[in-house]
Amino acid sequence: MRLKGGPTQDEVMAVSLAKLDILPGDLVADIGCGTGKVSIAASRVAERIYAIDQRPEAIAYARREAAAASAGNIEFFEGDAVEILPGIGHLSAAFVGGSRRLPEVLEILAGKVQGRIVVNAVMVGTLHEAIQSMQRLDIFIEALHLQVSRSSAIANGVMFKPNNPVYVIVGGVGCS
Amino acid sequence: MRLKGGPTQDEVMAVSLAKLDILPGDLVADIGCGTGKVSIAASRVAERIYAIDQRPEAIAYARREAAAASAGNIEFFEGDAVEILPGIGHLSAAFVGGSRRLPEVLEILAGKVQGRIVVNAVMVGTLHEAIQSMQRLDIFIEALHLQVSRSSAIANGVMFKPNNPVYVIVGGVGCS
Amino acid sequence: MRLKGGPTQDEVMAVSLAKLDILPGDLVADIGCGTGKVSIAASRVAERIYAIDQRPEAIAYARREAAAASAGNIEFFEGDAVEILPGIGHLSAAFVGGSRRLPEVLEILAGKVQGRIVVNAVMVGTLHEAIQSMQRLDIFIEALHLQVSRSSAIANGVMFKPNNPVYVIVGGVGCS
Amino acid sequence: MRLKGGPTQDEVMAVSLAKLDILPGDLVADIGCGTGKVSIAASRVAERIYAIDQRPEAIAYARREAAAASAGNIEFFEGDAVEILPGIGHLSAAFVGGSRRLPEVLEILAGKVQGRIVVNAVMVGTLHEAIQSMQRLDIFIEALHLQVSRSSAIANGVMFKPNNPVYVIVGGVGCS
Repeated sequence: MRLKGGPTQDEVMAVSLAKLDILPGDLVADIGCGTGKVSIAASRVAERIYAIDQRPEAIAYARREAAAASAGNIEFFEGDAVEILPGIGHLSAAFVGGSRRLPEVLEILAGKVQGRIVVNAVMVGTLHEAIQSMQRLDIFIEALHLQVSRSSAIANGVMFKPNNPVYVIVGGVGCS
Repeated sequence: MRLKGGPTQDEVMAVSLAKLDILPGDLVADIGCGTGKVSIAASRVAERIYAIDQRPEAIAYARREAAAASAGNIEFFEGDAVEILPGIGHLSAAFVGGSRRLPEVLEILAGKVQGRIVVNAVMVGTLHEAIQSMQRLDIFIEALHLQVSRSSAIANGVMFKPNNPVYVIVGGVGCS
Repeated sequence: MRLKGGPTQDEVMAVSLAKLDILPGDLVADIGCGTGKVSIAASRVAERIYAIDQRPEAIAYARREAAAASAGNIEFFEGDAVEILPGIGHLSAAFVGGSRRLPEVLEILAGKVQGRIVVNAVMVGTLHEAIQSMQRLDIFIEALHLQVSRSSAIANGVMFKPNNPVYVIVGGVGCS
Repeated sequence: MRLKGGPTQDEVMAVSLAKLDILPGDLVADIGCGTGKVSIAASRVAERIYAIDQRPEAIAYARREAAAASAGNIEFFEGDAVEILPGIGHLSAAFVGGSRRLPEVLEILAGKVQGRIVVNAVMVGTLHEAIQSMQRLDIFIEALHLQVSRSSAIANGVMFKPNNPVYVIVGGVGCS
């Protein structure tokens, strides 16, 4: 399946998970879960993952991936995070891989998440919106620009080919 | 303490640990352990860490950090990795944060490590040497160039300040 | 003198000048001229430069630099570009190194400049504002993210030290 | 035509030309001239360009481009720069876009060029070799890592797509 944006790059996921700082026992939301890659990785440590996506094909794909990975502690929700999140109790952490209603999602998360909120963005407008929303909510910690380039073997040597740069925006309650 | 090079950047450590792919039960060497930051992080998952550094002040510092972090499964070795490694049995994975004898270290590790070998480098010569050594040993998987920039709040907005770029060179037995 | 932001990096200036595509005979505005570095470089090719800055210390500094460089075809204006630009006739190209009233400046420039408009920005908000303003004015061509790292000789080799990343936003009349 | 490596990126060329610091009256060699893009740009300022490439298809292509650009002051040489350069007198500056015999080329240039020598490289081995050769010849000034990312308009915003990173290695007689 080719979901828009594709799966989170391995290196960006590693950094995002480190920023989320998930501990055993944690309840974690994955908003815009796409292929389920981040949910599955987070499910290795967390108690429970709430994976939300409004695209039926994403939920179907992520369910299959989770089953193949024996990740039994992921609960899937098909729909708009703004409508689904209020029905979920408090959260330890939240990852936002994508959302069309980011300011609203962040406002709901700011009232629910006890630890870190991490947003991944590729668009300048989303970066700007995430920082401004988090600053307004007084939860902004930092934003990172990650540029990963990977070696590529060519005829007579090694060169680097760049991945698309990704912004990782980090917030946390009481952390501003 | 200001050890040469300073501690591994958080984001570079996150990527390096992800590449090391450490599992419960693993035996992991940390060569050029410096402040002990990578050893301590790896010790959360691995069975045992062998932390090696030839600088007495690094070993002393890392020991204190490990004690403060209640990381009881790290064994410290002060001296040259080329002399110490042969006395250690097989390894699941190895991280090389620094070594003056990198080609020799990699040759020893290639015969001992059953999983991943990850080298961090900031110098072009070290990058070149690590890739060439791994290619010669037939264990080269990939090299990454990581450029992390971090938001910095200034008077009327947010700008990005870059960290020093770091190369992460990844090898593995039977993976070339 | 330490003007806020410092002089434009050499490499960023080279790219910005290339995008401005200045030809002999051109009339060029340099808005937020700071140390005068871009004005002086542009004055080598252009017919006349209008260098504008609202900081008296910038104008004084840039005047001295221009005199030292024998750049006699730069006209200096101390004040707000939004008020000064309407008094200047048509322009071949314009460089905006800094302005607190960017959307208004771009709107005036869009009606005056026959070639390229190039904005340098370090802040995310300015990048966002420049793109949005240029898109609204239908003059947006492209934005670049320039990350220059420079070799630094250390004890036993060469490493790269990064400059602050800079955004170069390029517009042009009839080019969108 | 698809010459290996393709033409120099506009932004990399702008930086390389700025480092070459070409003045009216200059005699400039372009080694591995490829499509002729750098030769043609340099010919706007320099007195004469010696464009060398060992690929007949490159020379043929570059000749046509030069004719189309009315760049009449470019002299073309098909063959190996190590054999051709000795037949050319002193040079003001030299650009090396590619060469299989870089250390030899740099040694010849070090004895011929009175100003700047600029090498473009994408491979780590070439970067390493260029720095080491220039250090040995005592002409090394600096190396740059240029990472240019360009805006790309997608459905609902602007993101950045990275170009391949390029190394620009700068040398000069009496400048080390």
